[in-house]
Amino acid sequence: MSTPSTARAYTDLTGLFAPRAVALVGASDQGERFGTRVFRQLMNFGYAGPIYPVNPRATELNGLTCYPSVSELPETPDHVGITVATERVFEVLEECAARGVPFATVYSAGFSETGTEEGRERQAKLVAFARRTGMRIMGPNCNGVINFVDAFAMASTGAIAGPRRPAGNVGVVSHSGGLGQINVMWRAMETGLGISYEASIGNEADLDSIDFARFMLRSAATDVVLMAIEGIKDGARLIELAREAAEREKPIVILKFGRTEAGSRAAASHTGTIAGADDIYDAAFRQFGLIRVFETNELYEMATLLRTRRWPKGRRVASAAATGGNIVQLADVGETLGIEWPEYSPQTQATLAQFMPGYGKISNPTDMTSLATGEPENFRRALQAIAEDPQVDLIAPIFAFVKRVDIERGAELLRCLPKPAAMLWVGGCTDDQTFGPRDLVSGGLPVFRNATPCLRAVRAAADFGAMAAEYKSGLRTPVRPAGIDTGRALALLRGFEGKLTEREAKDVLGAYGFAVTQEHLATSIDEAIAHARAIQGPVALKIDSPDIPHKTEAGAIRLDVRGEGALRTAFKEVVESARTYAPSARINGVLVQEMVPTGIEMMLGIVRDPVFGPVVAVALGGIHVEVLRDISYRIAPVTFAEARRMLRELRGYKLLEGVRGEKAADMEALVETLVRLSWFAADCADEIAELDINPLRVLERGAGVRVVDALIVRRANP
Amino acid sequence: MSTPSTARAYTDLTGLFAPRAVALVGASDQGERFGTRVFRQLMNFGYAGPIYPVNPRATELNGLTCYPSVSELPETPDHVGITVATERVFEVLEECAARGVPFATVYSAGFSETGTEEGRERQAKLVAFARRTGMRIMGPNCNGVINFVDAFAMASTGAIAGPRRPAGNVGVVSHSGGLGQINVMWRAMETGLGISYEASIGNEADLDSIDFARFMLRSAATDVVLMAIEGIKDGARLIELAREAAEREKPIVILKFGRTEAGSRAAASHTGTIAGADDIYDAAFRQFGLIRVFETNELYEMATLLRTRRWPKGRRVASAAATGGNIVQLADVGETLGIEWPEYSPQTQATLAQFMPGYGKISNPTDMTSLATGEPENFRRALQAIAEDPQVDLIAPIFAFVKRVDIERGAELLRCLPKPAAMLWVGGCTDDQTFGPRDLVSGGLPVFRNATPCLRAVRAAADFGAMAAEYKSGLRTPVRPAGIDTGRALALLRGFEGKLTEREAKDVLGAYGFAVTQEHLATSIDEAIAHARAIQGPVALKIDSPDIPHKTEAGAIRLDVRGEGALRTAFKEVVESARTYAPSARINGVLVQEMVPTGIEMMLGIVRDPVFGPVVAVALGGIHVEVLRDISYRIAPVTFAEARRMLRELRGYKLLEGVRGEKAADMEALVETLVRLSWFAADCADEIAELDINPLRVLERGAGVRVVDALIVRRANP
Repeated sequence: MSTPSTARAYTDLTGLFAPRAVALVGASDQGERFGTRVFRQLMNFGYAGPIYPVNPRATELNGLTCYPSVSELPETPDHVGITVATERVFEVLEECAARGVPFATVYSAGFSETGTEEGRERQAKLVAFARRTGMRIMGPNCNGVINFVDAFAMASTGAIAGPRRPAGNVGVVSHSGGLGQINVMWRAMETGLGISYEASIGNEADLDSIDFARFMLRSAATDVVLMAIEGIKDGARLIELAREAAEREKPIVILKFGRTEAGSRAAASHTGTIAGADDIYDAAFRQFGLIRVFETNELYEMATLLRTRRWPKGRRVASAAATGGNIVQLADVGETLGIEWPEYSPQTQATLAQFMPGYGKISNPTDMTSLATGEPENFRRALQAIAEDPQVDLIAPIFAFVKRVDIERGAELLRCLPKPAAMLWVGGCTDDQTFGPRDLVSGGLPVFRNATPCLRAVRAAADFGAMAAEYKSGLRTPVRPAGIDTGRALALLRGFEGKLTEREAKDVLGAYGFAVTQEHLATSIDEAIAHARAIQGPVALKIDSPDIPHKTEAGAIRLDVRGEGALRTAFKEVVESARTYAPSARINGVLVQEMVPTGIEMMLGIVRDPVFGPVVAVALGGIHVEVLRDISYRIAPVTFAEARRMLRELRGYKLLEGVRGEKAADMEALVETLVRLSWFAADCADEIAELDINPLRVLERGAGVRVVDALIVRRANP
Repeated sequence: MSTPSTARAYTDLTGLFAPRAVALVGASDQGERFGTRVFRQLMNFGYAGPIYPVNPRATELNGLTCYPSVSELPETPDHVGITVATERVFEVLEECAARGVPFATVYSAGFSETGTEEGRERQAKLVAFARRTGMRIMGPNCNGVINFVDAFAMASTGAIAGPRRPAGNVGVVSHSGGLGQINVMWRAMETGLGISYEASIGNEADLDSIDFARFMLRSAATDVVLMAIEGIKDGARLIELAREAAEREKPIVILKFGRTEAGSRAAASHTGTIAGADDIYDAAFRQFGLIRVFETNELYEMATLLRTRRWPKGRRVASAAATGGNIVQLADVGETLGIEWPEYSPQTQATLAQFMPGYGKISNPTDMTSLATGEPENFRRALQAIAEDPQVDLIAPIFAFVKRVDIERGAELLRCLPKPAAMLWVGGCTDDQTFGPRDLVSGGLPVFRNATPCLRAVRAAADFGAMAAEYKSGLRTPVRPAGIDTGRALALLRGFEGKLTEREAKDVLGAYGFAVTQEHLATSIDEAIAHARAIQGPVALKIDSPDIPHKTEAGAIRLDVRGEGALRTAFKEVVESARTYAPSARINGVLVQEMVPTGIEMMLGIVRDPVFGPVVAVALGGIHVEVLRDISYRIAPVTFAEARRMLRELRGYKLLEGVRGEKAADMEALVETLVRLSWFAADCADEIAELDINPLRVLERGAGVRVVDALIVRRANP
């Protein structure tokens, strides 16, 4: 169903993150070499188990016995770090294997990241070594792990210099060392967040980002996982990871680089030509509930709220502030992020009226300038009343300049509310300038400085909660539409090679239950007349020849033919035009096809993605695809709800609802067709290289759809 | 040409911002009342001139003589602050007028912001008072000014409590007090920026946001102005302000709320129905070079770079870092913001190769992990070489974890470069944890924490520089196309009332030089034949009747009529169909019209905006307007370059360049028509309520355009 996974089954990484004993090969106390820095951090971070430095040029390092080789260690460590020159890496690894070491981290560079043949071969050798020995390897070209939970760090970064910060519940996985350790981990800690584990994974020859993220998801110490990655090798494993995140209700926030990379497929179908790799990543993230962000700071900003794991029931937010300008700004930002601001219930209105008499109807978000200035106790009571309103899913009050006691009481109020809350603190503390948002964040409260990251996180929390609930209730499990005969469709498909004719493609699709146009091949005028009678209405005549793909250009097509006389003339003309146009063409006959009523033309397609396997695409036809690139993608198969979301994503969606007095299109039939196509993609992925249904004509509500034309290209080497 | 300005000529606000003497009416030392807080800040901020507290209930306040009324002050202050109860405001103002006080600030609320009739009347009275007395008034319902340059503050905010921070070159104008003083001013200072002036302007009954921004622009102490506004009263004055900002090369960054507000016009034309107020603000900001942002933090982030007033020659940026992940992230962010990453010149390559031997061709942005770790001096030399590359307009190096001496040397290098630079410092200082980006920012260097605000500011600086240069060279001055006969067009227009017929509208447009379809009114068959001969080609016949707007529905239209016989038949049919459809309709005759070749259909329109006056709009026809809302607006008139930018903004722009093998459209003729329409809008704004040219058919390159149909509605009370 997708690119076959080459990765092995899940391995518990406890021995890597929290070894009972550890060795560092290449440890040193000279200068600022890599091995010196890793050894210094390993010594200073507070690791309680035995540390074995390995370096033939020393007998003692920082008071520890230094060993000439792994072979000579007094015991077998759970984890060996390797910082030696590239050429010596395999020699050390073989020693580790001989000792039965379960985990090694290769920090050394000089592998596939060099882009050289030599580097790629070296990496292939490393993969083969891991497969052969069963040892699990982190890296190469990586910067190791940092474990705040068990006080173990084997990494060169200065971002952990100084006293060890307390552990928190945020996990970080990054391809790049600097980015993961500085931009994400250190910066997150600077805002008051605590980290459980950080992994800077490098080239992932063996252990990959999914392995590390899964370890963190399964650890009781982690409530949200942040990933900063350049790509994924195996989409199916990412999807499994996403499902596990939903089931455990631990969100994954993902920053994936390369989003502006141009699509680079050379293909015959529209779908294949247009789909960019990042479009498909983006679709997969949305489909499986991975929360996508676009810069490192957004990763930890999201975590500030998501780590609380309190999911608002919906997007209905309330807010109040003592500064009117902030209320206007918050409402503005919220509207662009899909936040709803419900009206307060009559009971809430009545309670608020006690604090703000004479203000008439009080709107949400609420300007409490009159109340809040100098009356913090009443401000808190008003917040309490708002939070109790059944219309409100989450409360996000704004604080500006406040006394320490008042911000702390406000924080306490939010912590004790029966529903999720976030604080937007835009200013400072009037009587204690050392006290700031960081102090509240480190106490567990979600505090934000700006409206955008606050409301983005609120939206993500609401969406994640809804998605997790759908997983639990089974609503996320795709269900096959009725009338699918996979066996017959596959048997037909396997009978063809290369590019199928329109008729052949529609025969295959018809077998799979698609509403293809009624059509029959006629090899004589009399057959054509019989077919037209069966169709009971006007027909189109089209030449059927594998050698004439462009029938209109050949003049070998006649539309809206009515009655026997016209049919006879048209049949002759079509055959003669085809013969004139391409004298040596093989001609199967003339296709007699029903004339399809007018409707909205869509393009549906399948593309095989190297990461995610079969992908289904939908767009309105013509310029919507080619000029506006208004296309929606999902990994196959999809649920009915997901197919509906795909359609609603289209900028041209309104056309389906009917504009300019036109009737609404048969949305249900379109959704069913999209779901069916996604199953076709999943079932037949190994057999087809490309598929376009273009156009699918969507008739008016109740009248269904018709596959008017279709292109299928068989896969060369299934 | 636009909504007439009711504001008065520019007044120098020096007396308001830096009075020689100041009085505060309502000053107090009791509790935390508004007058108490303003008086406390006024006393503490370091003002050197005489302060006169006015309060009949005290004789002395904080060691100063307190006066019972303004009338009894020993001298006339330049500026009087009024914090009394609403009911007493006018009484105090009259005393001020009697003393000849030039500036007053009314902090008191209870005016138009209440939304009540009483409040609105009170505000109108305040406007009338200012006009009558010539006194210039700030407020009401405002929070005054803060002047760091001359150490004068009359505002209640706690954001200036404590020692006064040093003045800087950033000016702030805000409608809201809290937002301007906390979210913008205080937060900007927290990042190390210095403020020149802050004005929290409230209801702007008299002095408005433009007056304050202009004062700041003209002050030598200010290099960039930040505005946080809910709207503008007079678009023409904003445009003048923007021009002055460009001429002085002092950028204005603007945050305007209400962007999600739905368009609410009820109109007959497409343009009129669809244009939302915020679309037009957005167009005006872009057209006149005001830099728009969407949240308060973005205001000061922009200022961090723009205050240096060094404009990159283009968008070609170079960067280098010791962390590869940050290079990938920067490239990604840059690409979405239109940043270009030029290749290094051979000379730069040669110099870099000395520092990074064996790396082959070095790409931009540059991963210098190998070099930078532990070799800061070489890193700086490499930066210097990159900065000298003629392909590079700005350099934005990334620093992660560095020693204080190295970040300071890096900062020094950037300061001394011959071209603009920005620093992205994502991490911290290894040997001095008290030292951070703030210390460099306060020294004048543009330092950013994240790639997005950094590269957004770079893009804005490049665009602003280009725009300022265009202003100086006169390229921003709109020029009339040839062949405009305003007198004739206006005379024709004034002959009609209400909604013009298609022919009448086209007559007016023809007089103004638009390429309307060739067409003549025929009242007999023989006339029709003569007209058709003159047109020399196939014609269309259309009934001409003010009572039959929907000709197709009436069946009173015949297309592609060729030859005398067909013409006679068609003429009769058109007249008969019209009579049958609407027996009592007035019929002027039959329009004989050239058949226009196929082409791309556009919609061009005019809408009158209450703030900006005449606005011109362009879109591709049909669904592009109604469903996709893919429309571009500008304030009329526009230059040819601006008209081209309007077209390039359209998502469907590629259609004009020719897709699917179709020929390119006559872009030059389309641009000329758009410019012509913008002049028509400017010239005839007082005469027309609405105008749509729909469709304008754009023929293939060299073949021009045709106004195929047009709708004009006259303005009821010009």
